[in-house]
Amino acid sequence: MKQPDPHSATGDLPPFLAACRLQPAAHTPVWIMRQAGRYLPEYRALRERHSFLEMMRTPELATEVTLQPVRRFPLDAAILFADIMTPLDGLGLGLDFAPGPVLERPVRSRADVEALRWRPAEEAVPHVLETVRALAGELPERTPLIGFAGAPWTLFCYLVEGRGSKSFITAKAFLHAEPEASRQLLELLADLTIDYARAQVGAGARALMLFDSWAGLLGPDDYRRFALPAVRRILEALSSSGVPRIYFPNQGATLLEDVAGLPVEVVGIDWRLPLSRARRVLGPQIGVQGNLDPAALFAPEAALREAIDQVLEEAGSGPGHVFNLGHGIERETDPAKVALLIDHVHARTARRTLREVPA
Amino acid sequence: MKQPDPHSATGDLPPFLAACRLQPAAHTPVWIMRQAGRYLPEYRALRERHSFLEMMRTPELATEVTLQPVRRFPLDAAILFADIMTPLDGLGLGLDFAPGPVLERPVRSRADVEALRWRPAEEAVPHVLETVRALAGELPERTPLIGFAGAPWTLFCYLVEGRGSKSFITAKAFLHAEPEASRQLLELLADLTIDYARAQVGAGARALMLFDSWAGLLGPDDYRRFALPAVRRILEALSSSGVPRIYFPNQGATLLEDVAGLPVEVVGIDWRLPLSRARRVLGPQIGVQGNLDPAALFAPEAALREAIDQVLEEAGSGPGHVFNLGHGIERETDPAKVALLIDHVHARTARRTLREVPA
Repeated sequence: MKQPDPHSATGDLPPFLAACRLQPAAHTPVWIMRQAGRYLPEYRALRERHSFLEMMRTPELATEVTLQPVRRFPLDAAILFADIMTPLDGLGLGLDFAPGPVLERPVRSRADVEALRWRPAEEAVPHVLETVRALAGELPERTPLIGFAGAPWTLFCYLVEGRGSKSFITAKAFLHAEPEASRQLLELLADLTIDYARAQVGAGARALMLFDSWAGLLGPDDYRRFALPAVRRILEALSSSGVPRIYFPNQGATLLEDVAGLPVEVVGIDWRLPLSRARRVLGPQIGVQGNLDPAALFAPEAALREAIDQVLEEAGSGPGHVFNLGHGIERETDPAKVALLIDHVHARTARRTLREVPA
Repeated sequence: MKQPDPHSATGDLPPFLAACRLQPAAHTPVWIMRQAGRYLPEYRALRERHSFLEMMRTPELATEVTLQPVRRFPLDAAILFADIMTPLDGLGLGLDFAPGPVLERPVRSRADVEALRWRPAEEAVPHVLETVRALAGELPERTPLIGFAGAPWTLFCYLVEGRGSKSFITAKAFLHAEPEASRQLLELLADLTIDYARAQVGAGARALMLFDSWAGLLGPDDYRRFALPAVRRILEALSSSGVPRIYFPNQGATLLEDVAGLPVEVVGIDWRLPLSRARRVLGPQIGVQGNLDPAALFAPEAALREAIDQVLEEAGSGPGHVFNLGHGIERETDPAKVALLIDHVHARTARRTLREVPA
């Protein structure tokens, strides 16, 4: 039997895609949630001249913002500059950003749900797909573009609450008061998301991440009854897309047993759950992404390096780890600390997995 | 060997105190986080005429607000009307409520920490102790008064951030940037809290709850390094007080292994972690308090009863369960649903534990 050649294996795939496929990579890949954003002076400079909505809706600007961190740092992936609410622009609910999503006409009744019609992404948000196409052309082969979407429950939270909230009690109350209408809305959001995600892959996205930012608002039973079926349907629909699927159930430590049964390549883990524990629950067939506490970037350099080493230690030496923060990077972060982070992960893991693969 | 007489045992202690002591109770006791608050019309009526701060600082008003829910519902415990920030009034940092805590001069440097001096509760907040004494005189024997304090890490969050926040990134960044000054501040807050809690017990509080509302902002390592030692010191100092200690590490599912080692009678569990799992981690010597999702109170009656039954099922039939929500009650809650909740828990659990004790 022919031994696999680890060098050619890593030669085939960029480190990010190799890790997503649980294959050995030249180094542990790194990207950072919200890497295109307010902690970068070049982003703030652009933001002074354009509104958030304008930046997302103008392919030249969205492309530029996506590329900014990739130019500055040796990141292993780029992520589309957009908002999880972007594809809901087509629902006609008066979506704006102030700076978080705000809806003029939130969904508050069964009738509101029944009146909703969604349009395909190519019609509703052609500018997003234009941005993806532009990025696919501009990004180096070794820096894949991650497309993304919000998971249905998280979109539901904003659609019903009408704006950001600590507890999203209006959305959660609706779930309990109107379980059937809620299911119908989650189904619609799953359909819309399947179309939106497939369109991104068609336009050149090489991985697809589903952000369930508010998964942690649900206990395991409600998660299983409401949020999970819609997530499963999206992930199943994307199985034929050929790109790795990443699912991020934020604050989902108590949901992970259910997440482990999903058809997914990688699960994002917030900083609350050590990666070794996540790996134990998820099993050896699913990779993990994460999970340095964004606050650690405010530590002095030596302490930051220790914190990074600890995440690497928790992730273990096997393949299937995409390094990231456990949440979006904070605006006040010093970009020099980001440079240190990426360099340190690369240096500490360089060819490490290769040495561990039998020659 | 003499068999214990369960009837006399439950006769000795009010159900709430029996459950805290892991002894059989006539029924599973119920109280509700924020039971004295904005969902009650009689509270809102009083609030129209007085500011939040005025209500907390005036013993007659604080006593009245504490008693309001106990008059209306057959609750098994009363909880002092105060804020976790109340004892920090004496630090001279310009504390106000708008409506959440806001500090004029937040702690932002090592020098700020070193300049802090705390005063004993009898000097700094005599009105709180007067309220406790009044309540101890007015409450029926079967409705014990729970005194409370904020856990040091949670107080730290407000002291450093200066106000409420979703991520408390300023506080977390300070923890990472200034670990020694942070430890010093947490120590000071532990000292202050020990004095404040002992004073409440001295004035008549029959249980003491420590609210760690922001425990879930820390991953297990930072929790163990910073938050846990200060909590342990308070709980140890209260062991001689003779009252049960309840610790609530909100959103602390991933911290529970560490919590299990604390000297505590009862641990509060938020709605994210099923009580059976909490019990497995905490072991048979620690009771649990919780954990109905406050959103379930917006469900139709039949669904609400099912959700309550599920919490009871998860808690198991053994003693040591104090029924509560998994978080503070929401302002929009219908008081009739609270009545239903209490009645249903009492009816479903009446004398149940007694039948299970060998005669």
